[in-house]
Amino acid sequence: MSHNTFGHLFRVTTWGESHGAAIGCVVDGVPPRLPISENDLQVWLDKRRPAQSRFTTQRKEADKVQILSGVYKDPDTGKPCTTGTPIQLMIANTDQRSKDYNAIKDAYRPGHADFTYDKKYGIRDPRGGGRSSARETAMRVAAGGIARKIIGDKIKIRGALVQMGEHKIDREKWNWNAIAKNPFWCPDTKAAKQWETYLDGVRKSGSSVGAVIEIVAENVPVGWGAPVYGKLDADLAAAMMSINAVKGVEIGDGFATAALRGEDNADEIITKRKKPHFTSNHAGGILGGISTGQDIVVRFAVKPTSSILTPRQTITRDNKETSIQTKGRHDPCVGIRAVPVGEAMMACVLADHKLRHIAQTHNL
Amino acid sequence: MSHNTFGHLFRVTTWGESHGAAIGCVVDGVPPRLPISENDLQVWLDKRRPAQSRFTTQRKEADKVQILSGVYKDPDTGKPCTTGTPIQLMIANTDQRSKDYNAIKDAYRPGHADFTYDKKYGIRDPRGGGRSSARETAMRVAAGGIARKIIGDKIKIRGALVQMGEHKIDREKWNWNAIAKNPFWCPDTKAAKQWETYLDGVRKSGSSVGAVIEIVAENVPVGWGAPVYGKLDADLAAAMMSINAVKGVEIGDGFATAALRGEDNADEIITKRKKPHFTSNHAGGILGGISTGQDIVVRFAVKPTSSILTPRQTITRDNKETSIQTKGRHDPCVGIRAVPVGEAMMACVLADHKLRHIAQTHNL
Amino acid sequence: MSHNTFGHLFRVTTWGESHGAAIGCVVDGVPPRLPISENDLQVWLDKRRPAQSRFTTQRKEADKVQILSGVYKDPDTGKPCTTGTPIQLMIANTDQRSKDYNAIKDAYRPGHADFTYDKKYGIRDPRGGGRSSARETAMRVAAGGIARKIIGDKIKIRGALVQMGEHKIDREKWNWNAIAKNPFWCPDTKAAKQWETYLDGVRKSGSSVGAVIEIVAENVPVGWGAPVYGKLDADLAAAMMSINAVKGVEIGDGFATAALRGEDNADEIITKRKKPHFTSNHAGGILGGISTGQDIVVRFAVKPTSSILTPRQTITRDNKETSIQTKGRHDPCVGIRAVPVGEAMMACVLADHKLRHIAQTHNL
Amino acid sequence: MSHNTFGHLFRVTTWGESHGAAIGCVVDGVPPRLPISENDLQVWLDKRRPAQSRFTTQRKEADKVQILSGVYKDPDTGKPCTTGTPIQLMIANTDQRSKDYNAIKDAYRPGHADFTYDKKYGIRDPRGGGRSSARETAMRVAAGGIARKIIGDKIKIRGALVQMGEHKIDREKWNWNAIAKNPFWCPDTKAAKQWETYLDGVRKSGSSVGAVIEIVAENVPVGWGAPVYGKLDADLAAAMMSINAVKGVEIGDGFATAALRGEDNADEIITKRKKPHFTSNHAGGILGGISTGQDIVVRFAVKPTSSILTPRQTITRDNKETSIQTKGRHDPCVGIRAVPVGEAMMACVLADHKLRHIAQTHNL
Repeated sequence: MSHNTFGHLFRVTTWGESHGAAIGCVVDGVPPRLPISENDLQVWLDKRRPAQSRFTTQRKEADKVQILSGVYKDPDTGKPCTTGTPIQLMIANTDQRSKDYNAIKDAYRPGHADFTYDKKYGIRDPRGGGRSSARETAMRVAAGGIARKIIGDKIKIRGALVQMGEHKIDREKWNWNAIAKNPFWCPDTKAAKQWETYLDGVRKSGSSVGAVIEIVAENVPVGWGAPVYGKLDADLAAAMMSINAVKGVEIGDGFATAALRGEDNADEIITKRKKPHFTSNHAGGILGGISTGQDIVVRFAVKPTSSILTPRQTITRDNKETSIQTKGRHDPCVGIRAVPVGEAMMACVLADHKLRHIAQTHNL
Repeated sequence: MSHNTFGHLFRVTTWGESHGAAIGCVVDGVPPRLPISENDLQVWLDKRRPAQSRFTTQRKEADKVQILSGVYKDPDTGKPCTTGTPIQLMIANTDQRSKDYNAIKDAYRPGHADFTYDKKYGIRDPRGGGRSSARETAMRVAAGGIARKIIGDKIKIRGALVQMGEHKIDREKWNWNAIAKNPFWCPDTKAAKQWETYLDGVRKSGSSVGAVIEIVAENVPVGWGAPVYGKLDADLAAAMMSINAVKGVEIGDGFATAALRGEDNADEIITKRKKPHFTSNHAGGILGGISTGQDIVVRFAVKPTSSILTPRQTITRDNKETSIQTKGRHDPCVGIRAVPVGEAMMACVLADHKLRHIAQTHNL
Repeated sequence: MSHNTFGHLFRVTTWGESHGAAIGCVVDGVPPRLPISENDLQVWLDKRRPAQSRFTTQRKEADKVQILSGVYKDPDTGKPCTTGTPIQLMIANTDQRSKDYNAIKDAYRPGHADFTYDKKYGIRDPRGGGRSSARETAMRVAAGGIARKIIGDKIKIRGALVQMGEHKIDREKWNWNAIAKNPFWCPDTKAAKQWETYLDGVRKSGSSVGAVIEIVAENVPVGWGAPVYGKLDADLAAAMMSINAVKGVEIGDGFATAALRGEDNADEIITKRKKPHFTSNHAGGILGGISTGQDIVVRFAVKPTSSILTPRQTITRDNKETSIQTKGRHDPCVGIRAVPVGEAMMACVLADHKLRHIAQTHNL
Repeated sequence: MSHNTFGHLFRVTTWGESHGAAIGCVVDGVPPRLPISENDLQVWLDKRRPAQSRFTTQRKEADKVQILSGVYKDPDTGKPCTTGTPIQLMIANTDQRSKDYNAIKDAYRPGHADFTYDKKYGIRDPRGGGRSSARETAMRVAAGGIARKIIGDKIKIRGALVQMGEHKIDREKWNWNAIAKNPFWCPDTKAAKQWETYLDGVRKSGSSVGAVIEIVAENVPVGWGAPVYGKLDADLAAAMMSINAVKGVEIGDGFATAALRGEDNADEIITKRKKPHFTSNHAGGILGGISTGQDIVVRFAVKPTSSILTPRQTITRDNKETSIQTKGRHDPCVGIRAVPVGEAMMACVLADHKLRHIAQTHNL
């Protein structure tokens, strides 16, 4: 994790601004001869694509991903597969309405990175937030598609919105099948129904709300991760916290463990069909930074979209006080679109750790 | 952050096991001619040292740190200072009662890394948890002492315990002067008093509780941090999550932002004495991964100590069910000793980002 | 230096195959507000472009570089400048005659990477050597253009061909002005004349020859570089050795120092205008891995182009013996086009070390 | 390769000065359960130890290596083996005669790093060259011992001195058995005899000479290495160039390839016992940065020891001209002791690339 590169062995380097010609990434360290096509990646991008419901930004981007390198026909099957060399992915930006941003080119939008980029670099691309735009996350989703090829189909990664504003789901009603049937990736059908009304209200009032997303990875083998600074949970924390607008990350029972007693928190182990079996999973599938073989459970909090229709007090580049009001197209709950991004980051972290695990232990 | 190394330019590589001959670290990338002595580091280690009250492990370790390299007398002052070459710090282990651990060498302690280390590596050092012991954090504290020299005295880093078990402090009563006057780093004198009785009860019952720690860094200049995967908050998340027993990390309002509206969360900006001034700090001092100049506020949750005096169900190396009961010396609330460790990690992250910021922008 | 990424703080990650849609690179860690345009980079690419004389491959590539990100108009001047975010450079491939390579898709060309790529990855892109083609070096030259912006105009980097086949230049006749006046970057006008006849003979006989290139960087300040594994000369050695077909690298007097006595090799120091002055430069401007302030002098040997018109014995993918004969367009002395590449790598190494030096010492 | 760390997955971080309390290194990324003991490493250190003949420095160092972490008894055999956690190696400095260096603490020894360290850092440890001393290479040799465990016994790494001053060996007379029978690691018995007289003369005259060392690794499997900036030869070049006093590195025919024709240089391939077989090895076992399965052949040039008994002109810290004359204990041909160091660096590079190869291709 260094500037614009994520990962050690499975390395993703993204580039591009919201309203530049294109965005893209180089994915390096990929094992050879994994079957892969643009369609394989497009599937995931389509999940994240904006303007799929009235609850996300109306920016219309086809988000068609192109593979420009690192893939060639397999010598046996003739079908496209990875070659072991760097894979360049690119998405053209097509629906840039940069004029929307003229009004704000000199004023810093509260809650955005305008102020900090300008102070750090003495320059910023104001069109759509430039490099700090959530548009960058499209490349994470595309790279996540490659990561999934590395970790294999057996490992299942799924994400869900478990809280919108003050409204949490009823965890007793968790149903993975529900998430594809509402515009929120909500696993609780009843909650989703209520959220629809709720978010319509938020949207119409020109406001926004935050959210909590939970990502679960099933069937991760025991042993991935590494002490002490390369812990699986440390890397997951960095991965999720690096997503735009994320303000908190927790593993397993997370912050709730603070209120627990030792006897209630530490998961006991028995044997089941002659194999180790944990009787609970407060740990979220990670002990000492290494996977236990249980579900890996990560949650992260996304703050409310900072771009709202209410005027907000701010200053300009030359320290003049002013007020600002968003007019561009934006999300009333940016957390919704963070679900596929969180899934992708989980996939990238696991792919990187799979390769690191194999490197050190030689266990495939 | 890779295996046992933390940081990019300010790099700390720790080594050593709980009951080996010694623990230590190499600190590399340190600017030259910073005045430094063993005493400067010992100050911080003394804050973390076990057995300072009845509420932490009774293992008696002097924890005297030695500087073995990278320091030489300043050509002008004749006093010891950094030379720009790697600094090796070492602490001898003296009070190892390894026999305490004979009983558990074949059984995996629930909530500990015994199971995962053994499954990953096919071997583990069972004495005191070996490499996965919180003893490793002594070196973080020592390295943090060097980090503080890099960032300078103007930046003030302080930590506090803000929740013990179910008991939170009253934030209205926050008083930094209180933290040195109770054994918990608690900034609320009244809460500290109550915690004393509470934790005595926990300790006597052979149980343990979790905690939440808050670390605040004041006077960090605007502009430290880096997009997109080298964000200051992403690095802080990884740093804190890499501390033993930590299960959650949040920045500023953290998970609470999920329940906020956009207008309540995004901090407005005005000018004050002709300088930019934020009217609130929900963001915890970081926007777009870059410091805003406000206080940087990080909180992390520490799970209850897994080693408790109640028998717990587990399995052995050869998959036999058994039960295990801790007899060694342990902490009823390991979160207490995590406070100086969290401070040290904050210092390390800031030192690394200060150097990275200077490298790219040439702003000293 | 890791797989497809070069550098620590000034980081270049290249991608693309000889006959894919395009080649490109991400350049990260660039300081902000350096004025830069596509033309600034094109100048260097034009020096490397093939088919500029009958002595280089006749592949006709415009090699027009595009900047796709990381550059925006300067808030003061309105001219394009770096923003501190990753710069994506791309060159479309236009003159791919992939049918030329159909004959060799199953046979391994001796001296090329065909055999090793296929054995390592189980797959290779045979079109023009795929990823192992010298075409990748175009991106090094483009990135080198950015590197030159970082190190500034005062540092002058120039390269020359000092040996072609068995023919060395007369170093007494060295004239930097001559290099632009012959197709070989030869600093000895008389030698250049002789090489023309010589290389015509080599070319017409369908053969090829090797070469030695010397790169000199003037006005590098004292103090760049770093002990012990980040030595300036170690990084230069890796940089040059990573160029296609390079088989040797030396600094200053290089291999000749083996035959010297101590009193003849170690450069003495006097003062001149009250400043330190070395009376000779056997060291090539580097002592202990750190620049001395003298000219930095690096030489590297390029083997003869492996693609020649004479039939050569080899095997196929399925271990059948066969013979192979190049028919595509190739260079009789690939060393010629390595000159601008060597200059670019020198610039990249210096840019990286400038940033590393500033980071640690805070000396701008 | 970054400051004081070598390698990507097999990572060695060294620390310590020539006349400090000790020198040491952390070796990280080591696979678990490799049998290892201090004796296993001492064998290699004993080969490098000074004062074994009159031709190397008379500094008497036992160079006894201690393993302080990362090794524990194997659960099956009970014998010491690696645990997968960082291994700390340490050697106490015992024979420091620092007073020898008092005379030179303000003057810069020509050919040494005194000048550059002082200019870079504004401080240097003058005792024995401090961090820039060749004493650091003892830790490379120790780490190389661990690297050899990783690559296994089948791979044989051997080094030889092939040139001393102007005197080259007769390559026709190469005999590996000879190297242990003379104090020079010379594979040509007759040359070794002549060198003895020659070097005695050099030594008695208070002078020094350079040397060329060749390192050969046999039985390296095909496929280790990685394009484009992680090439095996690029990493070997950096590794060897990072050794004190090295001024040139070449692979296979190296600089001689410049004078070759394409048909003489590119190694042809036939089949032998149904396996690929190269009819020659001009390439030195590496094509496209990846091992071919042939012997890997690297040569490097070591300059003459800069410390000689003849007075040399130099300046002091405050820019005063002076002359300097070495009086400490030194080597007339420091190249001799570079042989085991070169072997160790070969082992480290191969170990790192073995792990990287396994990580990406999953071929054990």
